[in-house]
Amino acid sequence: MKLHSSTRRALVAAAGIAAFGLASLATVVTAADTEQSLLDRAKSLFSPLPDHARVDDYPHSKERAELGKMLFFETRVSVDGSTSCAACHSPSFHGADSRALSIGVHGQKLPRNANTVFNTPLLVAQHYGGNRQTVEEQALKALTSPLAYGNKSFEEAEGRLRALGYEKYFEAAFPNENDPVSAENWSKAIGSFERTLLTPAPFDRYLKGDTMAISAEAKLGLEKFMSYGCAGCHNGSTVGGQSFRKFGLTEDYWKATGSVEMAELKGRDMGRWHDTKKEEDKFIFKVPQLRNVAMTPPYFHDGSVDKLDDAVRIMARLQLGRQLGDDDVRHLVAFLHTLTGDLPKNFATAPVLPVAPFRN
Amino acid sequence: MKLHSSTRRALVAAAGIAAFGLASLATVVTAADTEQSLLDRAKSLFSPLPDHARVDDYPHSKERAELGKMLFFETRVSVDGSTSCAACHSPSFHGADSRALSIGVHGQKLPRNANTVFNTPLLVAQHYGGNRQTVEEQALKALTSPLAYGNKSFEEAEGRLRALGYEKYFEAAFPNENDPVSAENWSKAIGSFERTLLTPAPFDRYLKGDTMAISAEAKLGLEKFMSYGCAGCHNGSTVGGQSFRKFGLTEDYWKATGSVEMAELKGRDMGRWHDTKKEEDKFIFKVPQLRNVAMTPPYFHDGSVDKLDDAVRIMARLQLGRQLGDDDVRHLVAFLHTLTGDLPKNFATAPVLPVAPFRN
Repeated sequence: MKLHSSTRRALVAAAGIAAFGLASLATVVTAADTEQSLLDRAKSLFSPLPDHARVDDYPHSKERAELGKMLFFETRVSVDGSTSCAACHSPSFHGADSRALSIGVHGQKLPRNANTVFNTPLLVAQHYGGNRQTVEEQALKALTSPLAYGNKSFEEAEGRLRALGYEKYFEAAFPNENDPVSAENWSKAIGSFERTLLTPAPFDRYLKGDTMAISAEAKLGLEKFMSYGCAGCHNGSTVGGQSFRKFGLTEDYWKATGSVEMAELKGRDMGRWHDTKKEEDKFIFKVPQLRNVAMTPPYFHDGSVDKLDDAVRIMARLQLGRQLGDDDVRHLVAFLHTLTGDLPKNFATAPVLPVAPFRN
Repeated sequence: MKLHSSTRRALVAAAGIAAFGLASLATVVTAADTEQSLLDRAKSLFSPLPDHARVDDYPHSKERAELGKMLFFETRVSVDGSTSCAACHSPSFHGADSRALSIGVHGQKLPRNANTVFNTPLLVAQHYGGNRQTVEEQALKALTSPLAYGNKSFEEAEGRLRALGYEKYFEAAFPNENDPVSAENWSKAIGSFERTLLTPAPFDRYLKGDTMAISAEAKLGLEKFMSYGCAGCHNGSTVGGQSFRKFGLTEDYWKATGSVEMAELKGRDMGRWHDTKKEEDKFIFKVPQLRNVAMTPPYFHDGSVDKLDDAVRIMARLQLGRQLGDDDVRHLVAFLHTLTGDLPKNFATAPVLPVAPFRN
C-alpha cells in the first residue's frame, strides 16, 4: 500500500506537470519512473485485446461471418417478426440495449439488461447468470427462448429460415454439408460474426506502451482501480467477465441500487441460483466486462442504475466496503472512459436482408 | 392501340436481336426508332427522380439532417423504448417493413403495412389513407399516436428528448431559437433527413436517355405498363403515389387478395372513409409509389399478398379488368425491377445515439 500511495502522489504530481506545463529534470525522471511502474502493474493485471476471438472449434470464413451478420439483424426468425440479436444489441448503443430490461417477442420484458455483444467471445460465459457458455450457445438459446425469439424448437425457426430464402446462404457458408440449415450452423454463423466484434480502445494502446494514449486523470483512475481492488474481479483483456462473484458483499444489492420495488414485485434476482438451485449460488452473477461501460448504461443485471458515477460508488461500497470521494469517482470514471472502443465497421452498417414478406 | 401493338412487336423483334446477336441494317433502324418512340412515351408519363426533395417551407441544413437521422433511429422517445421510425422503415428492408402489419409500442399491431420511406417527400400525401400530407406531419403524428410511439402529447416526448440529452443537438440544428426542442423542429429535423432519401434506379438512367440501362424484357414490361393502363395511376417521378383511387374497381379487394379473414376479423379497411366518413371515400386509398416495389413485399395496404407476380396479376384484374398472361407478368415484373435503387448511404449506417439509459 505504501508503494501504491507514493505512486499515486507521483501521479498527482505528474498530472500537475501536465496541467501546468512545468517540469524540472528531476520531476520528469520521477514521472517517467512512475509511468513505467504504473504500466508494469497494469500489464500484470490486464492485456490488450487480441486481433480476433476465433477458436478452433468454430472455424471462421468470410461467408460464415456474412451469413452470421444477416442472421444477427434478421427479425423475421422471431415468431412476431419483432426480435433479432440486434434488437437488444444495437449498433446505436455500442452493441448493448439502452433499456433497463430488453424486450422480446410480443412486447415481453426480458428478466435482465442486455450487455454489449462486443468482445463477448472472450468472456468466461454469456449472460449475467452465465448459463450460456459460448456465444454460439447463446445464439441458439435465444432463438428458442419463449421470451426472446419465441420459437418452440429449432425446427420452427428452420421453417422460417427456409421460407425467407436462407438456404443458399447456408450452403455457401457450409459447403459440402448435406443439411446446412441446422441449429449448429445457425450458432456457428452468428458466432463467426460475433467473434469479429472486438473493440480496441485507448487503454489497449496504453497497455502496448503508448503512455500518452490515456489522460493523467485516467492514470490516477487506473491506479485506484488496481489499488482499491476493483481489478480483483475486473481484470484480463476484457477488464472483467472472467469470473463469477456475489453481488452485494457488504449489503443487499437491491437496497443499494434502489431496485427494492423491482425485487418486491418480481422476487429477488438470485443470479446463478435460478439455474443451479444451489445455496452457494445465491446472488452469484458473472462479473461483467467493463469495456465500453461508459457507452452502455443503464448498469447492473437489472439495469437499475442510470449513471456511471453512481454505479462506481455503489460497486465500491457493496463489494469493497469503501466510500469513494468525489475525486476517486472522477478518476475512476476517467479510466473507464479509456475502455470505449470504436464501433466495429462491419457492425455499424445494416445488412440488406433477403426479400421476403413476414405474415403476422 | 395499333401503334402500341406494332411498337410491342418491334420490341419483341429488338429483344430477339439482343438475344441472338443478329442484325441487319434495316432491323437496327427499326429497333432504334422503336427505342426512341418507347422512350418518348415513357418520358411523357414519368420523370427521373430529382436530386433532392427539399422545399422552401423546410430549409435544409447538415445539422438538421444529422439530428433528423438520430431521431429517426431513436427508440427511447417511444413509451416502452421499442419503436422508432426505423423500426418500421428498416435499412435491411429498403426503408419498408417486411411484416404484413407493423408493430408499435407494447407489441401492438398497426392497422396497415408500412411502405418504404424512400422518395416519400415527393408523394401527394403520406400513408395509404393519405391523412398525413407531408413527411413532417407524418413524423409528428407517429410520435403522438397511441399505437406507434404511444406518447400522449409532444410534451411527453419532449421530456424524453431532454432526458436523453437532445437539447444540444436541437440547438445546433435550430440556432438562435428560444425553444428549439419543439414539435415543429422534431418534424423539421426528421423531414430534413427524409428529404435526402431518394433512390435513383436504372429506370432513371433510362429516362435520361441511356436505353441500355434496362433490359429488353423490362422494355416490353414498360410498354405493357403504359398500354395496359397501369401508368394511368402509377406515373410521375415516383411511379405512383400522386393520386387517390378506389382499390377494387371490378370486385372487392379482400376477396381478390385473400384477406377475407382479416376483413371479417377487423372489419373492412375502407381507406380514406375512416378519416372523412364521406360515402365517396369508401375504399379510396392513396396509389402507392412503385419505386423499390420488388424489394418491399408484402403488398397492398394490409400486406395481404406476398409475391410481386401475384400483386401484379391482382392489380390488373381488380383495377383494369384484365387477366394477365404469364409473359405479361414476367415482362411487367422485369420492368418493376428497374425501379429498385441503391440504399442511400446515409441510411444504411446506424447513428451512434446519445448515451443515456431508458427505464422501462
